Amino acid sequence: MQPSNRIRIVLVETTHPGNIGAVARAMKTMALGQLVLVRPKIFPAPEATARASGADDILEHAVLCDTLEEALRDCVLPYAVTARARHIAWPVLTPREFAARVAIDPSASGDIAIVFGRESSGLSNAELDLCRGAIRIPSQPEFSSLNLAMAVQIVAYELYQATSAAPAPGGSGFDPFDPPATAEELDLLYQHLLRVAEAIDYFDPAKPRLLPRRLRRLISRGGLLRSETQILRGLLTAVERERTKD
Amino acid sequence: MQPSNRIRIVLVETTHPGNIGAVARAMKTMALGQLVLVRPKIFPAPEATARASGADDILEHAVLCDTLEEALRDCVLPYAVTARARHIAWPVLTPREFAARVAIDPSASGDIAIVFGRESSGLSNAELDLCRGAIRIPSQPEFSSLNLAMAVQIVAYELYQATSAAPAPGGSGFDPFDPPATAEELDLLYQHLLRVAEAIDYFDPAKPRLLPRRLRRLISRGGLLRSETQILRGLLTAVERERTKD
Repeated sequence: MQPSNRIRIVLVETTHPGNIGAVARAMKTMALGQLVLVRPKIFPAPEATARASGADDILEHAVLCDTLEEALRDCVLPYAVTARARHIAWPVLTPREFAARVAIDPSASGDIAIVFGRESSGLSNAELDLCRGAIRIPSQPEFSSLNLAMAVQIVAYELYQATSAAPAPGGSGFDPFDPPATAEELDLLYQHLLRVAEAIDYFDPAKPRLLPRRLRRLISRGGLLRSETQILRGLLTAVERERTKD
Repeated sequence: MQPSNRIRIVLVETTHPGNIGAVARAMKTMALGQLVLVRPKIFPAPEATARASGADDILEHAVLCDTLEEALRDCVLPYAVTARARHIAWPVLTPREFAARVAIDPSASGDIAIVFGRESSGLSNAELDLCRGAIRIPSQPEFSSLNLAMAVQIVAYELYQATSAAPAPGGSGFDPFDPPATAEELDLLYQHLLRVAEAIDYFDPAKPRLLPRRLRRLISRGGLLRSETQILRGLLTAVERERTKD
């Protein structure tokens, strides 16, 4: 099963039908198909169809629900997309971190729901409580309100990037809850890498040139999971062990 | 100077004023401010202001031009966002690869323009010829037409991610034309990493378990530049040299 078939986009009480159409178009460009609408204000609507620009099939197959509970039925991993951090007990992921997790194990059983709140007021605390994780799109703090369909587009784009860049061959034993590495873990990996580079005479701290900065940027860009930093540090430790053995 | 001040978004002959407003909002959420409009069909327009949702300042300061040549004046790096590969002499980057390049050297002199074509027909060949690089947003081949403002949102989002995740301290000697690694270069890095892991007894090919897949995914996810694969392979070669020395 492809990840795209496991993922449903859930819109809660959308006010503008044009946004629903724009969401359908955004989904289809990124190979997502399952749209669930919880109490949309106006739907179906000509404006939704117009803004869908050919993604009519997604609107036609959209599932209408009365409550978010109903929309999340049979869904193992509901994630809320939220602009605020209030009232959230679980770690908040970026879309990229979220997509990396989904890509890690496409064979995991159960559907993933990505829940988007109202244009004006987002999700209520009770609705957030129904979710098991949160996604926040990095944006300028002073003007962070993305249009609803834009937010869907970015999350869908990250999912498409992550799943098409690394098609995973069948099942595995990965834990879908493997968390992304913290800044501290990334820093420890960076320090370890520099230490080994120095030990094997690849790097001279007296003449650092560009290596440290390039390594740091490379590490911070990758969106590493904690388990991946552990693998890399395990490798570095094995290099050090080899050296002291001789 | 922040990269966001160096980047101008150029829209060529936009038909729908609503799209111009949505572009302004998308830009502002990702800390971009410079909008240039080449012969917009209707501008200013109430629909543009409505869809800008508070990003009015970007619309007010938008620069109107009669030709793309005029819009690109004083601009060292014009990139075209295009859905098609026809007629393009330079390598086509993903938004992530493009953003990684911009982030590498924010101190480089000169402005970067990102040029978006008409809603219906994109950019003409003559307009493409004015650009020095191309960006293509990965999307489903059967339905690849993103809304104009969505495309701006994704490129702006990648720029924001790249520049805010890795704030670069001042100038450097990096080459802004350092190309992203090819699939083959990434594969050679992967093979090299596995070879070294085996040599230092970190990896047993007879019992591969999950390591090869995890390493491959980690490498394919990172958006490495060619020069970065060279650094990493240099490190691996140094490890191998150490071993044969003893």
